[in-house]
Amino acid sequence: MSDPIITLTTDFGDGSSYVAAMKGVVLSINPAARIVDLSHRIPPQDTRYAAYFLPTVIPYFPPASLHVVVVDPGVGTERALLYVEVEGQRLLVPDNGCWTELLRAEPRSPLVIRLAEKRFWRDRVSATFHGRDILAPAAAHLSLGLDPRNLGPTATEWARFQGPKATLHQDSLNGEVVLVDPFGNLITNIPGESLSLLKKPARFKVGGHNLERLVRTYGEAEPGSLVALVSSSGMLEIAVNQGNAAEQLRVEVGSPVTAISAP
Amino acid sequence: MSDPIITLTTDFGDGSSYVAAMKGVVLSINPAARIVDLSHRIPPQDTRYAAYFLPTVIPYFPPASLHVVVVDPGVGTERALLYVEVEGQRLLVPDNGCWTELLRAEPRSPLVIRLAEKRFWRDRVSATFHGRDILAPAAAHLSLGLDPRNLGPTATEWARFQGPKATLHQDSLNGEVVLVDPFGNLITNIPGESLSLLKKPARFKVGGHNLERLVRTYGEAEPGSLVALVSSSGMLEIAVNQGNAAEQLRVEVGSPVTAISAP
Amino acid sequence: MSDPIITLTTDFGDGSSYVAAMKGVVLSINPAARIVDLSHRIPPQDTRYAAYFLPTVIPYFPPASLHVVVVDPGVGTERALLYVEVEGQRLLVPDNGCWTELLRAEPRSPLVIRLAEKRFWRDRVSATFHGRDILAPAAAHLSLGLDPRNLGPTATEWARFQGPKATLHQDSLNGEVVLVDPFGNLITNIPGESLSLLKKPARFKVGGHNLERLVRTYGEAEPGSLVALVSSSGMLEIAVNQGNAAEQLRVEVGSPVTAISAP
Repeated sequence: MSDPIITLTTDFGDGSSYVAAMKGVVLSINPAARIVDLSHRIPPQDTRYAAYFLPTVIPYFPPASLHVVVVDPGVGTERALLYVEVEGQRLLVPDNGCWTELLRAEPRSPLVIRLAEKRFWRDRVSATFHGRDILAPAAAHLSLGLDPRNLGPTATEWARFQGPKATLHQDSLNGEVVLVDPFGNLITNIPGESLSLLKKPARFKVGGHNLERLVRTYGEAEPGSLVALVSSSGMLEIAVNQGNAAEQLRVEVGSPVTAISAP
Repeated sequence: MSDPIITLTTDFGDGSSYVAAMKGVVLSINPAARIVDLSHRIPPQDTRYAAYFLPTVIPYFPPASLHVVVVDPGVGTERALLYVEVEGQRLLVPDNGCWTELLRAEPRSPLVIRLAEKRFWRDRVSATFHGRDILAPAAAHLSLGLDPRNLGPTATEWARFQGPKATLHQDSLNGEVVLVDPFGNLITNIPGESLSLLKKPARFKVGGHNLERLVRTYGEAEPGSLVALVSSSGMLEIAVNQGNAAEQLRVEVGSPVTAISAP
Repeated sequence: MSDPIITLTTDFGDGSSYVAAMKGVVLSINPAARIVDLSHRIPPQDTRYAAYFLPTVIPYFPPASLHVVVVDPGVGTERALLYVEVEGQRLLVPDNGCWTELLRAEPRSPLVIRLAEKRFWRDRVSATFHGRDILAPAAAHLSLGLDPRNLGPTATEWARFQGPKATLHQDSLNGEVVLVDPFGNLITNIPGESLSLLKKPARFKVGGHNLERLVRTYGEAEPGSLVALVSSSGMLEIAVNQGNAAEQLRVEVGSPVTAISAP
């Protein structure tokens, strides 16, 4: 059997001492753990960004992988810390809804445990760094085979992320940009498969620009031209072939995007 | 025997969900694979940069390491994806020349296979993310011991990167800046050992500046002064001791650099 | 027994070919080594930053972990390279004081060895890249079980980092900002526990601003308000709840910070 996988997703920034300290804590408890960096570039305290990030990543991991997520504006307040089993994956997260988009693909109720047993935490818990002092050690203990029910009581309520939903009105789908990827591609909340709900092939509006057709991949268009396509995560995406759509259109998260039946 | 090594080199940016998803795909197929991040900061779609980056890194790895490279402006078009054996290393790359600078040190013809066998890909292949859906799973299967000849037919032709060559004219070597490193040091395409072809010790011209002599290391010059030296990868390098040469000289990739026999 | 851990801390920047080459060198000598990135974002050649970074990270690792630190403005000059045992950890460092803040918590004299035995280096040593050619191979050999006394002679002198010390004057503690973290929080050199030396609860001055009270965690204050608290590393920290104190106060490393007895 392979050494257990513990992934880290934080808003601490690349090269932060906070990430490095968490790695040390994990390895001190389970020297055999294999730490995998997912991202340390979640924008600071942006639980909304984390909520969109996790579903594009977590489901690709082997079943029962452990994922520690530290995007935690409420650190040190009364917000809970949770252990969650969802989609066959295991997460350790602040109770701020960052993980609940993973429920969409999950028919069953998740197992959720509120972390309460201090014997699985570090001896001294900083009021500002529960990632290092609670989540990392809990993950390390789980990776050694600890039954998660030892971590605390089962929880039946938790914070939920409520993202904007795309809506269908007669001949148009109305959504918005929910993520800008590192290429400047605009990922929307309009599912690619919902485009078939329109009566005729769609054309698109975003940031005052019109796009006439959906392509299959970037390279189908001339370099520099604006295209609509279905992203690798299945959502409508607006991109510039070999360019940066966010900069070129001056569009950002929250900007409206519309798909309209061709006349 | 150690767990197999799979390195990742991409233009996805640090903290990108695209990198994280590739890690998940690799580990889902081979949970024992050890993933090593080489760089996710290749400039977007800059196959030229990748071509210079790989020879400074890949040869240091143990024989038969697997290297996945995703700098792929042609994703989803007819460009091929390749498995390559070169310099004792194994690469999975788009057929855009990003790997062919590794051939310079290689006397033998490389083994090149065109990826064609879909049973080693993910079930659903996105038109925009072959790194996740084809290259990562192929690498993971190889790391489990798959014979690469199962991946597809042997290829005898492939795209080649044609970088600018330094040229010798009587008393001067004429080259250019091909890479700017993170310190702002200017790496040129003039091999350090070619400087011995000049009749007398060289002096240098770059961006309108003259340098009188070659030093062995940064610290031989005063802080802030401009120096020429042979880089750790064996090429002529222009640097500012404890400073940033690219910013100070306002020089960039493509700027001419000349080494001239001292009069 | 788990595979040995080798951590990397450098000023090479994320995605640098220099970091990637070091990983290859380590794995070529010990394919079973597990490489852990701590940070590649130490500001270029900033040994002072490294001196503050390491004590917030290294002590969390399992005993006898190996830590390679490459922040080395003197590369290629006569400065020594060292193997150090301190706080139960093992470091490979340039002799520039980057590690000596770790001595503060250490009652015993550290074992320090000057790297001299070239058989544990790469065959060709670049004058500008001792991280790849000396430190990485030395760490890899140690991870295979090499007795460190084989690396060279014991050293009894070494460079020491002399950071600014906070001072107590009657009713005030006078210190300064020594680190700005990725959130813009200002970490000072005033130990949190020294605040009890003041006769009455402290108030604080920084960058022309006054703070009335110490909080326990960010969330105790309104979003956007300025707070003083004890950081996760135990030092007085000035922060803006859900904001960036460094930007908001226009304060940087070296700015004075004062804690004063309340009147």
